[in-house]
Amino acid sequence: MSIDVLGYAAHSPTADLQPYRFERRDARADDVVIEILYCGVCHSDIHNARNDWGRSVYPMVPGHEIIGRVLSVGRAVTRFKAGDRVGVGCMVDACQHCEPCLRGLEQYCAEGATYTYNGIDRHDNRPTHGGYSEKIVVSERFVLKIPDGLDLAGAAPLLCAGITTWSPLRHWQVGLGSRVGVVGLGGLGHMALKLAKALGAEVTLLTRSPGKEQDARRLGADRVVLSSDAGQMAAVGGHFDLIIDTVPYVHDLNPYVPTLGIGGTLVLVGYLGPLDPFLNSAPLVMGRKSIAGSLIGGIAETQELLDFCGRHGITSDIELIRMRDINAAYGRMLESDVKYRFVIDMGSLKV
Amino acid sequence: MSIDVLGYAAHSPTADLQPYRFERRDARADDVVIEILYCGVCHSDIHNARNDWGRSVYPMVPGHEIIGRVLSVGRAVTRFKAGDRVGVGCMVDACQHCEPCLRGLEQYCAEGATYTYNGIDRHDNRPTHGGYSEKIVVSERFVLKIPDGLDLAGAAPLLCAGITTWSPLRHWQVGLGSRVGVVGLGGLGHMALKLAKALGAEVTLLTRSPGKEQDARRLGADRVVLSSDAGQMAAVGGHFDLIIDTVPYVHDLNPYVPTLGIGGTLVLVGYLGPLDPFLNSAPLVMGRKSIAGSLIGGIAETQELLDFCGRHGITSDIELIRMRDINAAYGRMLESDVKYRFVIDMGSLKV
Repeated sequence: MSIDVLGYAAHSPTADLQPYRFERRDARADDVVIEILYCGVCHSDIHNARNDWGRSVYPMVPGHEIIGRVLSVGRAVTRFKAGDRVGVGCMVDACQHCEPCLRGLEQYCAEGATYTYNGIDRHDNRPTHGGYSEKIVVSERFVLKIPDGLDLAGAAPLLCAGITTWSPLRHWQVGLGSRVGVVGLGGLGHMALKLAKALGAEVTLLTRSPGKEQDARRLGADRVVLSSDAGQMAAVGGHFDLIIDTVPYVHDLNPYVPTLGIGGTLVLVGYLGPLDPFLNSAPLVMGRKSIAGSLIGGIAETQELLDFCGRHGITSDIELIRMRDINAAYGRMLESDVKYRFVIDMGSLKV
Repeated sequence: MSIDVLGYAAHSPTADLQPYRFERRDARADDVVIEILYCGVCHSDIHNARNDWGRSVYPMVPGHEIIGRVLSVGRAVTRFKAGDRVGVGCMVDACQHCEPCLRGLEQYCAEGATYTYNGIDRHDNRPTHGGYSEKIVVSERFVLKIPDGLDLAGAAPLLCAGITTWSPLRHWQVGLGSRVGVVGLGGLGHMALKLAKALGAEVTLLTRSPGKEQDARRLGADRVVLSSDAGQMAAVGGHFDLIIDTVPYVHDLNPYVPTLGIGGTLVLVGYLGPLDPFLNSAPLVMGRKSIAGSLIGGIAETQELLDFCGRHGITSDIELIRMRDINAAYGRMLESDVKYRFVIDMGSLKV
C-alpha cells in the first residue's frame, strides 16, 4: 500500500521541472502524514536539480522548507495529531545512535543524515522526495511544530535558511551586545540579520552591492558596509565577534579576516569548495581568529528557532509563487532577483 | 646612565652571529634587572636573524626564552627581589589599556605588543634586544616567576615553545579525556605532547617521519600516526577535538580536517602565510569544524603554565650549548637535528 502523490520533479540536469506522479509510503507506526501547504525554494534546490554537486538521482522532487498540516498519524505517534501545523526541514531521518545524533546534532550524523530529497530512506531504501508535492510522510522525530500566530508561508524558509543561520548564532553564543557581521543579503543573509538582531546583537551587513542600505536596515542591520570599499572595511577593523558568510560561490575571505576581533570567527554557511585565493594564516595566528563552517542545524535546535520566531514574530520576507512558475523562479534566483525567498503555494498544484 | 652588556648579534641577514657590546637602560622604577643564565633558541630567532619576515633591524640580539636571576629592582617593584629565579618570554611590554591587554591577552595588544627583541621600547624608542646576552632589563609586569625545583635550563623553552602550545590547549579547554592531535615533533610539538598529556588528554602525534614512535611515546603520546599513510589517517577519522599544528612551513591542511571530530578545531601555531594548496571549505561546513591560529600566550597565562609545569615537573628536552656554538646550532635546527630545543648556557659568554 502506498500514497499517490502529485509533485514537480527534475528529470535531468538540464530539463525544466515538470509535473510528476509518484508514491509515498503508507504511514509507519512513527510516521506523520502531512498535507503540504507551502514549500520554500532554496538555492540548493537548484544545485541538486542541476546536479551541480554530482550526486543527483532522477527523477527528483526538490524542496526542504516544508510547511503543512497533519492529515493522519501512525499508531505510535504521540506528539502530533490531525490538524496540527507542522514543518519539515532538510532531514527526515538520521541514525539516532551516533555521538552527534545523541547530542542533537543529526545534521552531522556519523552515518549521514537522510536528506528530505535526493536521499535514500534508511528503512525501505527508496529515494526520498521533497516538498514540491502535495503530501509527505515523515517520522515524528523529524517533524517540527509551527507556533500559533506565525504566518505559515513566511515560516517555510525558517526550516533551512533560518536554521542555517540560527545554528551558528547559537553555537558561537551570540547575545546582547555581540557584534555580528553578515556577508551577503539573500535568503540566508536576510534571515541572519533578523535573527542576530532579535538576539540582541549589533548587526552589520557586509555587501558588494550598493543600494541595499534601506532594506538591510529594515531587516535589522545597524550598519551597512560596502565590502569593496577599503575605507569602509578599515572602519570595522577588529570589530566582529562573529561573521556569518552566506555567499554561495567562491570568494576571497582574506579581506574579512581583519574585521574580526581577537578570538573572532568567520563561519561559512553557503559555500562548499576550495578557498581560492589562498587564505592567509598570519592574521588568524596574530589574532586567534578562526575560519569555520556550519551546516543547517539539529532538530531540537530547529524547534528552538521556530519557538523563538513565534515569540518574536519573525518570518522570512517571501514572494509567493505558483508551482508552475518554479522554472522561472529558478532563473530569477540565479540573477538574485528575489526578496528574499520564493515560497510555493502548494494549493496551486491542484489548479 | 646605562648598563654595558655583552651579547651575540646578527648584523645582516647572511652574516653569522658574533659577539656584540651594547647598552641596556638603567632600571626604571618598575624595572627588574636580570642576569641571564639560560636562553632557549627558537626557530623564529633564525627567521628574524635572517630577515625571513622582512622586518628585521640590525644589529639584532635574538632570544626570547630567557631564564635568569634578579640582580636588582627599581623602587616601585613589589613582586621581585634580588636573587629571585625569573623568566622573560616573547614580550617585554604592551599598551596595557586596550581590550585584549585588559583581558590578559597582551600578545594580541591592539597597538602591538613590544617584542623582546627586534622591537622598539614604548618609552625611549630604543631597539629592544633579547636573551643572547648577559643581562636584560624588563618591567616587572612582564617578568615571570620560575617555580622552585624546576630545572632552569629546561624551563627556558617554556617561555615560548611551552606557552605557544599551552595557550591553545587552555583556550580550547583541553582536559581529562580530550582527544588532542599534535602535528610535528619539534620544539613546539614535543611541548604540546607533554602538556596535553599532563592535562589529561588522550594524545596522538601526527608525523610525516617514521621512527618517532619511541620518542613520542616517552614524551606523552598515546598513539603515533604516520600522516603520509592514508590508512593510518583514516583510522583516526573524526577523532580529534583539537589538533595543534606546529609545522613551521607551508603544508596541506586538507588531510588533517577529516581527522577532526564534529566541532573540532585545527589550530596553527607555527606557520604564517598562504594556505597552499587551497583549503576546502566543504568538510568544515559538513562538520562544524574550524581552522584557527594562536600566538604565544598572555603574561598571566604564561605564569599559569610555569606554575603547572612546576607542579608536574615538566620542562623541555634540551641540548645545552655554548654561546659561540649558536651558528652551528642554527644550521642543525634547519636540518631538524635537535631534540628538542637548544638552550644557551649564558655562562659560556664570559669564557
